[in-house]
Amino acid sequence: MDAETLIKAVPIVGLAGMLVAGWIFFSLTRQSAGNARMGEIAQAIQEGAMAFLKREYRILVIFVAAVAVLLGYFLGIRSAVAFASGAFCSALAGFIGMQGATRANVRTAAAASEEGQAKALLVAFNGGAVMGVSVASLGLLGLGLFFLWLGNPDDAKVINGFAMGASSIALFARVGGGIFTKAADVGADLVGKLEAGIPEDDPRNPGVIADNVGDNVGDVAGMGADIFESYVGSMVATIAIGATLFGDSLARLSGGGAVTEATLKSSLMALPLLLATVGFVASLVGILSLRLLKGIDPAGALRYSTFIAGGLFLAGAYVLIGGLPIHNGIFIAVLFGTLAGIIIGLITEYYTSGGPVRRIAEASKTGAATNIISGLAIGLESCALPVLVIVAAIWISNQSAGLYGIGIAAVGMLATVGITMSVDAYGPVADNAGGISEMAGLGPEVRAITDRLDSLGNTTAAMGKGFAIGSAALTTLALFSAFTQATDLSLQAKGLEPLDMSIDQPRVFIGLFLGGILPFFIGALTMTSVGRAATQMVEEIRRQFREIPGLLEGKAGVKPDSARCVEISTNAALKEMMLPGMTAVLAPVAVGFVLGPSALGGMLAGATVTGVLLALMMANSGGAWDNAKKAIEKGDIEGESKGTDAHKAAVVGDTVGDPFKDTSGPSMNILIKLMSVVSLVIAPLLGKTLL
Amino acid sequence: MDAETLIKAVPIVGLAGMLVAGWIFFSLTRQSAGNARMGEIAQAIQEGAMAFLKREYRILVIFVAAVAVLLGYFLGIRSAVAFASGAFCSALAGFIGMQGATRANVRTAAAASEEGQAKALLVAFNGGAVMGVSVASLGLLGLGLFFLWLGNPDDAKVINGFAMGASSIALFARVGGGIFTKAADVGADLVGKLEAGIPEDDPRNPGVIADNVGDNVGDVAGMGADIFESYVGSMVATIAIGATLFGDSLARLSGGGAVTEATLKSSLMALPLLLATVGFVASLVGILSLRLLKGIDPAGALRYSTFIAGGLFLAGAYVLIGGLPIHNGIFIAVLFGTLAGIIIGLITEYYTSGGPVRRIAEASKTGAATNIISGLAIGLESCALPVLVIVAAIWISNQSAGLYGIGIAAVGMLATVGITMSVDAYGPVADNAGGISEMAGLGPEVRAITDRLDSLGNTTAAMGKGFAIGSAALTTLALFSAFTQATDLSLQAKGLEPLDMSIDQPRVFIGLFLGGILPFFIGALTMTSVGRAATQMVEEIRRQFREIPGLLEGKAGVKPDSARCVEISTNAALKEMMLPGMTAVLAPVAVGFVLGPSALGGMLAGATVTGVLLALMMANSGGAWDNAKKAIEKGDIEGESKGTDAHKAAVVGDTVGDPFKDTSGPSMNILIKLMSVVSLVIAPLLGKTLL
Repeated sequence: MDAETLIKAVPIVGLAGMLVAGWIFFSLTRQSAGNARMGEIAQAIQEGAMAFLKREYRILVIFVAAVAVLLGYFLGIRSAVAFASGAFCSALAGFIGMQGATRANVRTAAAASEEGQAKALLVAFNGGAVMGVSVASLGLLGLGLFFLWLGNPDDAKVINGFAMGASSIALFARVGGGIFTKAADVGADLVGKLEAGIPEDDPRNPGVIADNVGDNVGDVAGMGADIFESYVGSMVATIAIGATLFGDSLARLSGGGAVTEATLKSSLMALPLLLATVGFVASLVGILSLRLLKGIDPAGALRYSTFIAGGLFLAGAYVLIGGLPIHNGIFIAVLFGTLAGIIIGLITEYYTSGGPVRRIAEASKTGAATNIISGLAIGLESCALPVLVIVAAIWISNQSAGLYGIGIAAVGMLATVGITMSVDAYGPVADNAGGISEMAGLGPEVRAITDRLDSLGNTTAAMGKGFAIGSAALTTLALFSAFTQATDLSLQAKGLEPLDMSIDQPRVFIGLFLGGILPFFIGALTMTSVGRAATQMVEEIRRQFREIPGLLEGKAGVKPDSARCVEISTNAALKEMMLPGMTAVLAPVAVGFVLGPSALGGMLAGATVTGVLLALMMANSGGAWDNAKKAIEKGDIEGESKGTDAHKAAVVGDTVGDPFKDTSGPSMNILIKLMSVVSLVIAPLLGKTLL
Repeated sequence: MDAETLIKAVPIVGLAGMLVAGWIFFSLTRQSAGNARMGEIAQAIQEGAMAFLKREYRILVIFVAAVAVLLGYFLGIRSAVAFASGAFCSALAGFIGMQGATRANVRTAAAASEEGQAKALLVAFNGGAVMGVSVASLGLLGLGLFFLWLGNPDDAKVINGFAMGASSIALFARVGGGIFTKAADVGADLVGKLEAGIPEDDPRNPGVIADNVGDNVGDVAGMGADIFESYVGSMVATIAIGATLFGDSLARLSGGGAVTEATLKSSLMALPLLLATVGFVASLVGILSLRLLKGIDPAGALRYSTFIAGGLFLAGAYVLIGGLPIHNGIFIAVLFGTLAGIIIGLITEYYTSGGPVRRIAEASKTGAATNIISGLAIGLESCALPVLVIVAAIWISNQSAGLYGIGIAAVGMLATVGITMSVDAYGPVADNAGGISEMAGLGPEVRAITDRLDSLGNTTAAMGKGFAIGSAALTTLALFSAFTQATDLSLQAKGLEPLDMSIDQPRVFIGLFLGGILPFFIGALTMTSVGRAATQMVEEIRRQFREIPGLLEGKAGVKPDSARCVEISTNAALKEMMLPGMTAVLAPVAVGFVLGPSALGGMLAGATVTGVLLALMMANSGGAWDNAKKAIEKGDIEGESKGTDAHKAAVVGDTVGDPFKDTSGPSMNILIKLMSVVSLVIAPLLGKTLL
C-alpha cells in the first residue's frame, strides 16, 4: 500500500462521516416528540443550551481572532489559518452535538412512553451518536485537508496550530460548561431537595431547566470538545514526532526492504490519520450494530457495540501497518494504547460502582465527616492503578517504536472515538430524558425505563471520564515529546546550546514545581466559581419560591421563571471561565520566554503529573460519592434508605463530588493538553531567555 | 578562621546542649504539679504515651537491625553503624521530648491555677524546649562525631546512613503518631460531642485520655522526629554535595586569595555543621530570653524570642562565612533560606486564620457540603504562594552558590531548629494543659488562661506545619541534588554511561509518574487507617457508655476504662504504620534496581512535587476548617454560635480536616525526605538495571 494515495481518502471519509451524522440527526427528528407539555420543556432546554453556546462563542470569536493575529505575526499566516480552523471545527462539533442531544432527550422520553425500552435506548444512543460521529468526522476532515496541503516534514509544524485551536475552544467549553452545569445542579438541589423537600427534577423548581441545560452544555458540548482535542492532539503530536525523526530513530521504524527515508517518513506521518480513518469506519459499524443489539440488556448492548468497533479497528490496523513499509512493532503500540483505554475504563468502573462505593455508603452511617473522609481516601487511592496502566503503555510502546510509539499509542486509544464519544454523550441524553418524563408527569412505568437508562448512563459517564483522562495523559505525553524534539531542532537551527532537560538542573525542577502548582490552582478557581455561582442560584430560587404566589404549592398554571436561572448559570460560567482559561494559555508562554525552554519542559511535566492525578482523584471520588448515595436510595445498604441520617450524610458527599467530577476534574484534562500544545506551537520561537 | 579547628567544637556544643536540656527538664520537674486529681490524669497520659513509645520502639528495633545488617553487607559496617546511630538519636530525642512534654502539661495547668498566665506560658514553653534543645543537641552531637571520624571527601558518604536512620524512625513515628492521635480525637469527638452531647475533654469520655496521649505522641514525638530528620538531612545533603564538588563548581565557591582545593572543600563540608552550631547557640539565647519576655502578650513573647534567635543566627552566619576562605555569596543562600522559612510560616498563618477562614465559616451557613467545597478550594489555592517562595529560594541560592547553595539554604532555614521546635512543641503541651484543667475541674478562670495559651498553640502549630513542609521541600531538593551527583560519580567509576535524567526520556517520565502516585497512595492509606481506627474507637466508647453503669450520668467514683482506648489507638497505629513505612523505604530501592537510576531520579522528583503540594493542601485546609469552627464558636460570624446548623456543618469540616492536617499531610514530609535519603544511600550500588 502507498500512504500518499491512501491519505487522500481521509478527508473524503471525514466528509462522508458528516453526511452520516446528518442522516442520524434527521432520522432522529422524524421520531415522535411526545405531547405538548414535553415539547414545551424540551424547547426550554434547547433554547437555554443554544443561548449559552451562542454567548460563549461570541466571546471566543474575539479570543480566537486575537490569538490568530498574534500567531500570524510571529509564525506566519498559515499557522493562524490552522488555528482558526481548529477552533472552528471544535465549535462546530459542539454545536452539532448539542443540536442532536437536545432533540434526542425528549424523543427518548417519548419512545420510552410509546414504544418501550429498546427503542428508547436506540434513540438516546443515536442522540449521542450525532456528537460522536461529528467529532470524528470533523477531526478527519479538518486535519486531513491540512495534511494534504502541508503534510511534508518542513511544513508539518503549521498543523500544530489546528490542535491549538481545538484546545483553546475545549478549555473554555469544558470549564464554562462545567461551571454552568454544577452551579445549576448544586443550587437546584440545595434549595429543592434540602430546603423545600421537593423531589429532583420537580417542575416547580426554577433551577431544574437550568440543571437540564447544564447536562447538555457540560456533558455533551464540554465533553465533546475535550475528546475532540485529544483526538486531534494525539494525531498532531504523532505527525510532529514523525516529521522530526532522523538517523537511527527513523531507521529503526523501517519495515525492512528497500525503502527510501522520504517514503518511510511520509508513511509514518500519514499513519495517525490513516489509523483514525480505520477506527472511524469501525466505529460506524459499531454504531449501526446497536440497531441489532438494542433488544438485549442496555449495558450489554453498549458494551458489545464498543467491542465490535474495537475489534474491527485492531484488525484493520494490523492489515494497514502490515501493508505500509513500516516496522510491525508499531502495531504493538496501537494495541497497547487501545487496551490501556479499555483497562482504565474498567478500573474507573470498579472505583465508581464496586466495593469502594459500599465502603463510602457504610461510612455514611457515622455521619457526613466519615463519608467525606472515606470518599477522599478512595479518590486518592484510585489514582494508582490507572497511572500504572498508563506507565505500562508508555513503556511498551516506547520499547516497540520509541517516542513515535507513544504518540501512536495515543492515536490507537482514540481512534474509535466515534463510538466511545457516542456512548459518552448517550449519558446526558438519558439523564435529560429522565428529567423531562418527571417534569411532564409521564408516570412511573416510563420513569422506570428512563431511570434504568439514566443509571446506565452514569456508569458510561464514569468510564468515559476515565477514558478522557487516560487519553489526555497519553496525548499530553505525545505532545510533550513533540515539543522537546521541535524545541531541540529550533535551538540547534539558531546555533544555541541544545535543550538540557535534566531534572537536576535548577531551571527544570523550578519548572516542575511551577507546573505542579497549576492544576491545584485551576482546581481551586473552578471549585470556588461553582460555589459562588451556586450561591447566586440558591438565592434566586429562594426568591422565586418566596415571591411567586402558588409556585411551591403547585397551583395549576403557575410556572417558575426558569429563564432567569439559565441566565444566572450562563453569566457565571462565562465570567468564571476567563481566569482559568487565560492562565492555561499564558503560563507556558510566560515561562517559556522568561525562564526558557528547559523550565517550560519542566513545567509541562509537572503539570501533567499533578493534573492527571488530580483529575483521576476528583473524577473517581465524585463518581463514588454519587453512587454511594444512590446505593442507599436503592436499599442496597441494610437498614438505610432515602431520608435516613446516613442518606443525608451521603447527599453531602454527592454534593461535594459534583464540582469535583464535573467541573474541576475535567478541567485538568484540557489544562495539560492545552499547555502542551501551546508550547509545541511556540517551540520555533523559543531561545534566549529573560532570566 | 580554620574550619578544621572549629568543627571540633560541634560535638562539644551538642553535648553541652544535652546538659542544657537536662537542666530545663529538671527545673521543670521542680514546679508544682497541682492536686492529686491532676496528678492522676497526668500520670495516665504519661503512661499511655510511654507505653506507646516503648511498643513502637520495640518494633523499630527489629526494623533498624534488619536494615543495618543489609547496609553492613552491601555498603560496609561503617554505614550500618551510622544508620543505627541516626535511628538511635532520633528515637532518643523523641523519648526525651515526650518526657518533658508529659511533665510540663500538668505543671502548666498548675501554674495557670496557682501563679497566672505568665508563669503558665513559661512552663509550657520550657516543656517544648526540652524537645527543641534535645533535637538540636543530638543532631550536632551525632553528626559532629561522625564528621570528625569520617569527614574527608572519600568517606563522607558513610554519613548519609545517619540521615537514613533518622528518616526511618521519623516515618514510623510520624505516621504511627498521626494515626494514634486522630483515631482517638475523631473517635472521642464523634461519640462524645455529637452523640452523647458532652463537652470536649469531659472526664466521662473514655477516649479523652487517649486523645491527650495522642497530642504527645503525634505532635511532640512525631513532629520532633520530622524536624530532626530535616535538620540532619539538610546537613548531610550539603556535606555530600560539598564532597563531590570539583573543577569550576568548586572554584566558584572560593573566597579568593590563595587557598588550596583541599582546604576549600573541607571548609565547604564543615560549613553546614558550623552554621547549625551558630544557630543552636542563637536558639539557646532565644529560649532564655522568654524568661524576660513572658510578661508581655504570649503571641508577642514567642514571636520576639524567635526573632532574637533568627537575628543572632544571621549575624553569626555572616561573621562565620566571612571568616572562612569561601565565597560570600553563600551567605545570600543562608539568608534566603531563613527568610523563606519565615515567609512560608506567615502565608500558612494567613490561610489558617485570615480571610480564608471567614470564607469557610460563611459557606457553612449553606451546609456541610459547601463548607467542605470551600475548604478544599482553599487548600488547593494555598499551595501556590508557599511553592513560589520555595522556588524563589531555590533560584536565588542556586544563582549565589550553585547546587551547594540550595543545600546551604535548607541548612539556613533549619539552623534555629532549637527555638522553632520549642515553639512547635509548646502547642501540644498547652493543649494538654487545657484538657487536664477541664478534666480536673479547675474552674473557668484557669480554663480561660489555658484556652488562651491553647489557641496560640493552634496558630504556632499551623505555622510549624508550614515550616516543616517548607524545610522538607528544601531538604529533599538538597538530598536529591546530592543523590544525582553521587550516582553520576558512581556510574562513572564503574565505567557505565553517565546519568541521563532528561525528562523527555521515557524512563524518567515513567519515574515521574510512579513517584507522583506515591503521596496520593500514602495519603489514601493513612486516611483509611484513621477512618478504620476511629470506627473501632467509636464502638469501644459506645460500649463503655452502654455497659458501665453510671458513667454517662457522671456518678461519683465511676470511671471510664481509658486504658482500653489507649490500647486501641496504640494497636491501630502500630499495625497501620507498617504498609506506608515499608512502601516509602522499598519503592526507591525497587525502582532504582529494576528501572535504573534515571527512573529513580524521576521518581524522586515526581514524589517531591506531588508530596509538597498535597502536604500544603492538607495542612492548610485542615487548619482552616479547624479555625472556621472556632470562629463560629467564638461568635465571630454574625448570627451563628455553638449549636447552630452552620456550626454543625463546620464541625464536619473540622473532623475531615483532622486526619488531613495531623496524619496524611505530615506523612508527606517524611515520605519525600526518606525516599531521597534512601536513594542517596544506595547511590553507590546503582548501575545495571533489570529492565
